[in-house]
Parts: sequence; C-alpha cells; structure tokens
Amino acid sequence: MITVNARATFSSEGPFKLTTIERRELEPHDVLIEIKYAGICHSDIHAARGEWGPVNYPLVPGHEIAGIVAKVGSEVTKYAVGDRVGVGCMVDSCRDCTNCRNGEEQYCLNGNTGTYGAIDRYGQYTQGGYSTHIVVTEDFVVRIPDGMELDVAAPLLCAGITTYSPLRHWGAAPGKRIAVVGLGGLGHMAVKIAHAMGAEVTVLSQSLKKKEDGLRHGADHYYATSDADTFEKLAGSFDLIINTVSAKIDISAYLSLLALDGTLVNVGAPAEPLSVNVFSLIGHRRSFAGSTIGGISETQEMLDFCAEHSIVPEIETISANQIDTAWERVLASDVRYRFVIDISTMENE
Amino acid sequence: MITVNARATFSSEGPFKLTTIERRELEPHDVLIEIKYAGICHSDIHAARGEWGPVNYPLVPGHEIAGIVAKVGSEVTKYAVGDRVGVGCMVDSCRDCTNCRNGEEQYCLNGNTGTYGAIDRYGQYTQGGYSTHIVVTEDFVVRIPDGMELDVAAPLLCAGITTYSPLRHWGAAPGKRIAVVGLGGLGHMAVKIAHAMGAEVTVLSQSLKKKEDGLRHGADHYYATSDADTFEKLAGSFDLIINTVSAKIDISAYLSLLALDGTLVNVGAPAEPLSVNVFSLIGHRRSFAGSTIGGISETQEMLDFCAEHSIVPEIETISANQIDTAWERVLASDVRYRFVIDISTMENE
Repeated sequence: MITVNARATFSSEGPFKLTTIERRELEPHDVLIEIKYAGICHSDIHAARGEWGPVNYPLVPGHEIAGIVAKVGSEVTKYAVGDRVGVGCMVDSCRDCTNCRNGEEQYCLNGNTGTYGAIDRYGQYTQGGYSTHIVVTEDFVVRIPDGMELDVAAPLLCAGITTYSPLRHWGAAPGKRIAVVGLGGLGHMAVKIAHAMGAEVTVLSQSLKKKEDGLRHGADHYYATSDADTFEKLAGSFDLIINTVSAKIDISAYLSLLALDGTLVNVGAPAEPLSVNVFSLIGHRRSFAGSTIGGISETQEMLDFCAEHSIVPEIETISANQIDTAWERVLASDVRYRFVIDISTMENE
Repeated sequence: MITVNARATFSSEGPFKLTTIERRELEPHDVLIEIKYAGICHSDIHAARGEWGPVNYPLVPGHEIAGIVAKVGSEVTKYAVGDRVGVGCMVDSCRDCTNCRNGEEQYCLNGNTGTYGAIDRYGQYTQGGYSTHIVVTEDFVVRIPDGMELDVAAPLLCAGITTYSPLRHWGAAPGKRIAVVGLGGLGHMAVKIAHAMGAEVTVLSQSLKKKEDGLRHGADHYYATSDADTFEKLAGSFDLIINTVSAKIDISAYLSLLALDGTLVNVGAPAEPLSVNVFSLIGHRRSFAGSTIGGISETQEMLDFCAEHSIVPEIETISANQIDTAWERVLASDVRYRFVIDISTMENE
C-alpha cells in the first residue's frame, strides 16, 4: 500500500483533519496521480454528512481532481509520467454492461465506483481528491488539454461534465432557447457551455444579485424567480431548462416555462421528492428528466470543448485548512463560483 | 340555428335528460354531421362534474363522434353528403400559431376549442357528441376508413389517438420494450397499437383479472402491480411506459422500471400533483412526460393505421337512456373496454 496525506472528516459534523490514508499499489493498468488541485462540490457535503446514505468515517471527499501522473503501471498505454490529467466522479465501472459498452459508464448497470465512499473491485473503500495522491485505472483518467491550468480544470470534472452532458444530449445549439436555473458552481458552467454551443441562454436566479456575472458568463437574459411576473412573462419560452438547484423548488412552475416538446433536466437531486402537476406536462408534451455527469469519453470531449472555447470555471483557491469554512460558505451560497483546494497546502496548520 | 336533440347533464350530479340544443347554421367551410355513435370517455365525467374547472350547465359531453355527413357548407371541398366521418376532442384552433402550422393543433398556443364545454370563435358554448347532429369546420373532421364500422370508430377519436400519438412520438417499433399501465379504454388501445407497431408489449395492471384479455389484445407479458415483486423483477426493463391511469399512483416506482433514456408518458392527468423522486430520473437519464390526443392529420393517420391493421376497440353499445348507469360503471372500472352510445336511441325513454 502507498500511504498518502489527506484531509478527512471523521463524523457527519466534521471538522476536517489532516490524516493519512492508503492507496493500493499500482496494478498493471493503474496510474498514480500527484494531485495538485481538488474542487469542492456541493455533493461532497451531502455525501459526507450522510444525507445520501450511511458513511464509513473517516471519509476523504473530492471528485474534481487535477494533477500530474507520478507513476504508471506496467501495462499503461494512455499516460506517461508527467502527463497532466484529471479524475472525476467515478474511478471504475463494470465495463461489461450495455451502458458501459456504449461509453455511458456513469449509468453502469452494475453501479459505477464512486471516487469516494464506494467499495472498489479490490474491496477497498474509495477515498477522494482532498489528498496528495490517488491511484486510478487509466481508463477512468482523462487528459487535461494543453493550455488549460490545473486549478480551473479541476471543477470541470464534475461541474463541467454534469452540465455539458445534458446540454449535448438534449441538443443545445444555435436557435435553441435554454434556461439555467441557479447560478452557482454548476449553473455558471451551464451558462458558459450553452453559450459556447450557440444557444440563447437565460439565467433564472432567485434575485438579480449576480446579473452582471451571468451576462459576463454568456447569458443573453437574466430574470429573478422571486419576481412572480417572471413566470408569467416567460411561459412557454424554452426548449430546454437545466435545473442546477438541488433544493426543493416548485418544479411545476418551471415546467410551465417550457415550449412544446421542451425538457426540464434536473442535474441536482433534492433529498425530498418533487411535486409535479401532470397537466403542466400534458399541455405541451413536456418532459421532466434527470441526468448525471457523463461518460469517460464524453468527459474528455468536454475538456477539449472547453479548451477550444476558452471556457473555465471561476474559482476561489483555498488552502487545505480552510475546507470547513469553505463548506459553510458553499451552504450559504457564498462562493463565486467554485472553491478549489490547493493540495500543496495539505500540511498547513 | 339548427335545433337538435341531445342528452345533457344539468348539474354536476346529473342525471342526463333528453333536451334540445342549438347548432350554428353552416358557415362556408362547415359540415353538418348526423351522429351515429358517441363514445363515453372517462374525461367526460371529470369535465361534467366540474373536476377540471367550472361548467356551464346544461352540458352535452362526448368527444368520440362517428357519423355521416348530412349537409356541407358552400365552400367545403374535403367532404360530401354521405361521407363517413369522425370528430374528436377539438373542433377548432387558432390555425395560425407555430404549433397549429406544424399540425399540432392539440397544442395550439392560443388554446384549441374543445368539442364541448368551450367557447368557440362564434362566441357559442360548444356541446358534444351525446346528440343527434353537430356542425364542425371541415378542417377538424376526419374520414373514417372504408371497412371500419362507425360504432368502433368512435372511441378511436379519443382513446385511439391519445395512445397512438405518444407511441409514434417516442418511437414504438420492433425492438422497443413498451409497458402500458392500466388496461381500460385507453390501455387496451395502447396495447393493440403498440403491438401493431411491432414493439414488445407488457401490461402492468393492478391484478391479473384481465390477463387473458391483455394477451388477446396483443400483449407479450402481463404483470400485477399489486405484487411487489413485479417492480423488483422489471426494474430498468422498458424503453417507454404509457401510463393510462389518471389516479394518483406511485410514479417513482414506475419510473424505476425504465431503462437508460427511457420515458414514462402520462396520457391521463390526476387532479392532484404526483410526487417524483428525482434520483429515479437522474440515475438513468429517465424522463417523465405528458401527451394529449394528437393533431388532426395525425388523427387521420391513426384511423388509417388502425384500418390497415384491423385494430378496433372492444365496445359495449348502450342506448341514450343508459348514460348514467354507464358512467357509474366507468367509475367502477366495470367496462370492457368502452361504452358507445347508439345515437339512434336518442329519444328512448
């Protein structure tokens, strides 16, 4: 085993502490990555606090990982030492089911292996990117394009692919009217990517506080959902709505904003069920759908697309001893737009 | 005005009484239809009892109408006296919006004109098919194919098109695994049509009471949803589910039966909202959608398809003085599978 430093939470209340964890010795197709940056995703908090199911503590979260290949297994062909690489929300899947064979490992019928909090094929409990090194099979590693900095690359591995995948799947393109609900970590990526795909982009945010930011990210329009007129004015306006808000919202009101054959896609999942007025679906053959991350090859495609269009997230870099504070600020929506941990500060007090 | 006999309900409690109503004199593009048969749809009951909004009584329901052209306006080109024709759930629309221009009059952005209980472009309150004659613009009349009897044609105008349209829209075809929830008026049509389209069809019904019927209609498999094993056994099995049940059901349980990218389409609308567990959507990029009837040209296509494949609903013909009893039996799910009123009995006591 390889012993590495990490920041772990030892209970649902935290706080994070510096500790060591074990990574497996390299299998023939494994790469050892020296992690340089790890993004903080809202779902780290849900998962670590046991809101999505029981947790084995200590837990090291983090599934937005960017770093440098430090060592490769004997049969690795895709990467070499020194390569700039990323790892997202999954580190393995069965690779044998229909979905895996179709490059949709995120929908693996046997369940993909989460980057943290899962049991991998070696029987080991996976630990995530709030650590100095990680060992991952080369098939679940992606290449970070030249010219893209590692710190801004990290959040693309979750926030980027989570929004890119549904935008591609539901055909974001010139002539398409797309709304993005919520302008947080995912929302600001959705705006940038949808804009780069040529769509007409509208942000639907609680207030107009971030309006300037939204327009700067590439939105064509910006509305406050706290203003009831918004829903009247925009009724039937959109072909696609990407809902990045994982709190319980009045989903039927948002569905009414869709045009004929429009789809509202949730990329976040509230813990409680949402109440859907079926008339709002039937009236215009609307759909309410869900989507999670993307496959490995699509994640690579997303990184290349972002590099080509100079799309990066807006980040605030923190040191490893600031994780607890950063989490509180994520919960208070006080981040523009993604915290990224500088892993070189791992041992800071 | 043309005075015609009809059966109307004078309050939300009924009963139906013989009365007379006024039809407009023929405009240049109108046809006068002598109604031979009118189907009884569950939505007649919802509407007439005020469950979908306020009602102006007396109300003559009926939007599954089959009859013979008795007279045509001066500029009618599509039909001649003696033609066998049908009228479904709408008798007009704006004909100018994007959806109307695309042949999707059912989704008219200005609201289509319902066959009963609506105000038409002449300011008249529309009255439906439980009557001897109706005047309709030729563009909202469809031709009943040669060889299809008028009595069995009637229910196709609602139950037929309501199921045909989503099956076409979501690609029912060989290789597709389709489930139909509920084996009533709509459900039995969905089974017959999906089977004729070449799909593998499964019925999901509360019990196995109608299993023989379901298999006879063309289902390949039949499961009882009262058996909890059904949901476990069929998890992730279907590309498309047509839910014909308009009562409040555990929609998340049914969503879990969809495969990757599968869609559950509600063609009925429960008065209460449905509770959707978003994880069940996100986990396999599933969609929960709604659909209502079909456009006029699609309704004609459906009739031709049914004639070509010898598809007709199974009906029980009643006389006009049995409407109240028939409604009670519809509410008790005691009909296999559609009541059709023989309009020649209009004056029966």
